[in-house]
Amino acid sequence: MIDAHRLVGVFPPVPTPFNENGAIYKDGFKQNFEFWNQHDLSGYLVLGSNGEAVLLDSREKTTLFEVARRNIPENKLMLIGTGCQSTKETIELTNGGASIGADAAVVLSPFYYKGLMKQEVLVKHFHAVADAATIPIIIYNMPACTGMDLSAETVAAIADHENIIGIKDSGGNMVKMQAINTLVKKPFSILAGSGSFLLPGLAVGASGGILALSNIAPQFCCRLYSLFRNGEISAATSLQNRLTPLNSAITSRWGVPALKAAMEMMGLYGGPVREPLLSFEESLKPTLKQIIDKALNIHAN
Amino acid sequence: MIDAHRLVGVFPPVPTPFNENGAIYKDGFKQNFEFWNQHDLSGYLVLGSNGEAVLLDSREKTTLFEVARRNIPENKLMLIGTGCQSTKETIELTNGGASIGADAAVVLSPFYYKGLMKQEVLVKHFHAVADAATIPIIIYNMPACTGMDLSAETVAAIADHENIIGIKDSGGNMVKMQAINTLVKKPFSILAGSGSFLLPGLAVGASGGILALSNIAPQFCCRLYSLFRNGEISAATSLQNRLTPLNSAITSRWGVPALKAAMEMMGLYGGPVREPLLSFEESLKPTLKQIIDKALNIHAN
Amino acid sequence: MIDAHRLVGVFPPVPTPFNENGAIYKDGFKQNFEFWNQHDLSGYLVLGSNGEAVLLDSREKTTLFEVARRNIPENKLMLIGTGCQSTKETIELTNGGASIGADAAVVLSPFYYKGLMKQEVLVKHFHAVADAATIPIIIYNMPACTGMDLSAETVAAIADHENIIGIKDSGGNMVKMQAINTLVKKPFSILAGSGSFLLPGLAVGASGGILALSNIAPQFCCRLYSLFRNGEISAATSLQNRLTPLNSAITSRWGVPALKAAMEMMGLYGGPVREPLLSFEESLKPTLKQIIDKALNIHAN
Amino acid sequence: MIDAHRLVGVFPPVPTPFNENGAIYKDGFKQNFEFWNQHDLSGYLVLGSNGEAVLLDSREKTTLFEVARRNIPENKLMLIGTGCQSTKETIELTNGGASIGADAAVVLSPFYYKGLMKQEVLVKHFHAVADAATIPIIIYNMPACTGMDLSAETVAAIADHENIIGIKDSGGNMVKMQAINTLVKKPFSILAGSGSFLLPGLAVGASGGILALSNIAPQFCCRLYSLFRNGEISAATSLQNRLTPLNSAITSRWGVPALKAAMEMMGLYGGPVREPLLSFEESLKPTLKQIIDKALNIHAN
Repeated sequence: MIDAHRLVGVFPPVPTPFNENGAIYKDGFKQNFEFWNQHDLSGYLVLGSNGEAVLLDSREKTTLFEVARRNIPENKLMLIGTGCQSTKETIELTNGGASIGADAAVVLSPFYYKGLMKQEVLVKHFHAVADAATIPIIIYNMPACTGMDLSAETVAAIADHENIIGIKDSGGNMVKMQAINTLVKKPFSILAGSGSFLLPGLAVGASGGILALSNIAPQFCCRLYSLFRNGEISAATSLQNRLTPLNSAITSRWGVPALKAAMEMMGLYGGPVREPLLSFEESLKPTLKQIIDKALNIHAN
Repeated sequence: MIDAHRLVGVFPPVPTPFNENGAIYKDGFKQNFEFWNQHDLSGYLVLGSNGEAVLLDSREKTTLFEVARRNIPENKLMLIGTGCQSTKETIELTNGGASIGADAAVVLSPFYYKGLMKQEVLVKHFHAVADAATIPIIIYNMPACTGMDLSAETVAAIADHENIIGIKDSGGNMVKMQAINTLVKKPFSILAGSGSFLLPGLAVGASGGILALSNIAPQFCCRLYSLFRNGEISAATSLQNRLTPLNSAITSRWGVPALKAAMEMMGLYGGPVREPLLSFEESLKPTLKQIIDKALNIHAN
Repeated sequence: MIDAHRLVGVFPPVPTPFNENGAIYKDGFKQNFEFWNQHDLSGYLVLGSNGEAVLLDSREKTTLFEVARRNIPENKLMLIGTGCQSTKETIELTNGGASIGADAAVVLSPFYYKGLMKQEVLVKHFHAVADAATIPIIIYNMPACTGMDLSAETVAAIADHENIIGIKDSGGNMVKMQAINTLVKKPFSILAGSGSFLLPGLAVGASGGILALSNIAPQFCCRLYSLFRNGEISAATSLQNRLTPLNSAITSRWGVPALKAAMEMMGLYGGPVREPLLSFEESLKPTLKQIIDKALNIHAN
Repeated sequence: MIDAHRLVGVFPPVPTPFNENGAIYKDGFKQNFEFWNQHDLSGYLVLGSNGEAVLLDSREKTTLFEVARRNIPENKLMLIGTGCQSTKETIELTNGGASIGADAAVVLSPFYYKGLMKQEVLVKHFHAVADAATIPIIIYNMPACTGMDLSAETVAAIADHENIIGIKDSGGNMVKMQAINTLVKKPFSILAGSGSFLLPGLAVGASGGILALSNIAPQFCCRLYSLFRNGEISAATSLQNRLTPLNSAITSRWGVPALKAAMEMMGLYGGPVREPLLSFEESLKPTLKQIIDKALNIHAN
C-alpha cells in the first residue's frame, strides 16, 4: 500500500483514446504509454476529468483500467478516478480498479445535490469510501466542473482517516492550499491539479501535480518540478510563465478537445472526443500550434 | 405524440422509493400513485432531481419507469428524466423509457464540462437527442444542481427543433422566462421548476409547473393554479406566500431528505434516501412539521 | 410623515441631467418633470442608481434635490437616494434632503467592505440612520451594483424599526420577496426595483415599483400596474412581456447611457453621462429605437 | 518620477488612525510611522482599502496625505489610494496628493456600474487619469471589495500607457498574474495585494507586495521577501504558511477592525474604526492574540 510520501512529482491525467467508431482504442493507449514511460513521470491518473470519465459506462471504465495496468511499469503509480455521485457506486468502482492493480483512487466529491453537500455529508461519504476501499484514497477537488469548492476545513475533516492520503486540488487557491497544509495533522500530500499553478503550488507546500500539460510535454513539467526542488527559482519562474498559456489552452480555455488535438500535433494518439464534446475546431488549430511552439521551443532556456 | 399544449397544470417530480435495504420499493411507489391519482394533476415526472436520478443505475431506472407506467392512468402524462452527461447514453435512456410508454422526456443539460458547454455544443446535443428520440423532448434547466444556467438565447436556439416542446426552468429568473417566451417562435411551454415561484411564473407566461410541493400537497398546488387561471389574484398571492416556506423547506433548504420525511408525515411512503444523502435529521422533524401545518392548515382561506 | 401605505404604484428613478459642460442642467430637469407630472405616477426617486448618484459630489446632490423639490407637485412623493458607505455621511445627506422637503430616503446598503457586512453590522447602520433621520427610510437592495444581496432575514431584522417603511428590491428574486413579506410583521412596502419584474413582483405581494422604464414610458408602466390591480392578468402578462426587452435595454443590458439616449428619442432631455460612463454608441441607436418602437407601439392591445 | 523598477519589496497599506471622537488622529499616525520607518519597507500605501478610504471625506483625505508626507522619509515611497467612481474626482484627488508630494497613485477600478465596466470604458478611464496625473499610476484590482475582477487582457490594455507602471492585484489568482506578466510588453510591476499569497506571487513573477500584515509584522514580511530573493525556498514556504493565518485574520476573515486591534496588541496605535464598521469584538481578542503569537513567535526558524 502506498502512502502520502509516494505522491510526489508529476502525473499526467491521461486522456481516454477512442477510435473513429467511438469505442476505446487500446492500441492508441498503448502507443501513448510507450512515450510517457520514457520520461521521469511519477505515475498516471486514469479517468480524471481529462479522461472523459463521466462519458464512459462502467464496462468501458474497467477495460480502460485493464489496458492501463498492462502498460504502466511497476515503478510508476497507477491512480484511478472513481468518484461517482453515489457512495455505493464509488466504492464498487474503486475496488474493481483495485482488483485490477491500481495503487490509489482519486475520488471526486459528489456534487449534484450541492446544496446538501455539507461537511458532515462529505465526511461520511469519503470515510465510507475509505473504509470500504482496498487501496488508499485521494480527495479530488475540481470546482470548475463540480460547481462546488471544498473548504480547507472540510478537506481537513475528510483527511482525518488513515486511508486518505492526499488531495488533487484543481481550484488554484494558494491560500486554501496553505490552510490545508496547516490544518491536516498527518502525512498528507497536496497535488496541484493544473500545470498553470504548479510552481506557486510547490511554493506553498504542494508535493507535485496532476497536470494535463504533462501528457504532451512531460519533460518540461518534470524540469519545472526539478528546478523548484533545486532552488533555481528564477529559471522556474520563467519556465512556469512560458508553459502556462499552453496548459490553459488545453484545459480552461478549450479543454479535452484541444488536449487531444495537441496530442496529435505532438505525434501521440489523440483521436475523437465523445459527444456532447465536439472535436477541436479546424480553424483554431494553427493558433493552438503556435501556442505549443511558443511554449515548448525553448532553446536558450 | 403530445405537443406543447399538453404541458399545462401541475406535475409532481416523484421521489424514488427505496426500502430499508436500499432497493427500489415498488409497493411504496404504487401506494403513492394511488394518492396522487385522486387529484387534478396533469401528470408526473419520474426521475427528476427529486427522484435521485443521479444515484440510480440504468437497470434501476428501467424498473422505475415500468412501475410508474403501470400506476399512471392514461389521462395523465408520464414524463421521464433522461439527461445524462453523454449524448449517447441520454438517447438510449430516452428511447428505453419511450418503449415502456413514457409520453415525453425531460432532458437535463449536460454540465460536467461546463466551460465547454457553449451554445453550439448544447444545441447539437439537444438536437441529436431530439432527432433520435421517439418521444418529444423537454429541456431541463437546473442551475442549483448543474452550476450552469442556460441563457434565454441558448434555450431559444435549442427550441428550434420540431421535437422539442417545452422547458422545465428551475432557475427562478422571471426576466429569463419572459425572454424565452419572446424569443421562441412556436408553441412551446414553460413549466416553473419550483413551487416557490409558480404564481410569478404563471404571471409571466408559464403554463404550469413541476413542483416538489405537489408530491405532498397536490390539492393546494392545483388550487393555486386554478386561482390564477380564474383571475383571483389576491387569493392566489396569499396562497403562494403561504406555500413557499414549505416548498423551500423540501427543496433548496433541506432537499430530498426533507421531502421524503414530509411524505411520511403526510401518510405517504417516504423511506430512506440513498447515500451520500443522509436521512432528514430527527431533531429537525418538529420544525418541518410546523412548517407543513402552517402552510397547509388553511381554514379561512 | 408618510407611511408604508403611501408606497404604492409607479415611481421613476429620474436621471440626473447634465449640460454639455458636465454641469447639472436645471432646465432639462424641469422640462422632464413637466412631462412626468402629466402621468399617474406616485412620485419620483431622485439620485438612485439611474441618477448617477455615485458620480456626484455633495454640493451637486443638494442642488439636484432643490430643483426636484420645486418641480414635484404636492400630491406626488419625493424620494431621495442617500446611501453612502459611511453611516455619518448617509445621515447628513438624508437630513440635508429632508430639510429641502424630501418625503423619504432610499438608503442603499453599504457594501465596499462586503466581507464585513454581517447582519449585525447592517442592522446597526440602518437603525442608526433611521434613528437620526427626520424622514422615513426605505431599504435599497441592489445586488447588480453592490455585489451583495441582502437576505430576507437581514431585511426583516433591519425592518424592525418604526422609521423604516419599505424596501426597493432590485434583485429580482421572487422567493426572497415572498420571504420578506412573510417575515416582516408590520406595514412594510416592497417596491420592485425593475420594470422587468413588476408584474411577477406584484403577484407575490409587491405594492409597486421604482422603474427606469417609467422615465420614458410612464403611461405603459401605470397601465401594467392597473391591469394587475383590476385582475386583468392575461392582458397584464402580454404587456409585461412586451415591455421587458425595453426595460432590460435601458438597465441591465446598456444602462444609464441607453436610458438617456432613449429619453432623447422620446423628446425628453437626456444629455451626456458622466465619465467613466460613455455616451450610448451611435451605431446602436437604430437598434434601441427598434426596441422602443416594438415595446411601445401597441395599437391592438 | 518613479518607474516600475522602484515597485519592489514590501509596502504596508497603512490604517487611518481615528481618535475617540472619530477624527483623524495625527499623533497616532506619527507614532506608527516611527515604528514602521525602522524596518526595511520600500514605502507605504496611504488610503488603500485598509485605510478606510471610502469612509473619509475629501478634506480628511488631504489631511491624511499631508501628515503621511511629513512622516515618510525620502528613501521610502509614498503611494496614495485615489480611485473614485468618477473619473474627474479621481484626477482631482490624484493631483491633490501629488502636490503634497506623493510618489505614485494606486487607482482602484471604478465598479459601481459593474455591468457597464467593459474593457473600453476602463481603458478610457485609466488613460484619462494617467494623462491628467502628474505622478505615475498603479492599477488596483480588488475583487473582494469591488465585486469585479479585471481580466489579464483588460489589465494589459490599461497598462499600455507610459504613465501606468504597475498593478496591485488582490485577487490571488496566480494564473492571471502570469498572464499579466506575459501580456504586458514593457517594464511593469505586479505587487501581490495580500500577505497570504506573497510567496506564490513572487514565484510567478511579482516584484513585491502591499500587505496588511506588514503593518504589524514588517520584519517577517521583509524576511519572507528576502528568503525568496536568496533562493531559500524551503524556509520561505515554512514562513509563508506560518504567516498566512494571521494575514487572513486581519483581512478576509475579520478585516480592518481586526487589523486595528492587532496593532494595539503590538504596541502601535490602532484606535476605533468608522461606522458602519464595528470595533473588533472583545470576545474574539484572545483568539486573535493566539493567532498573532503562533505566527510571530518563531524562535527556531
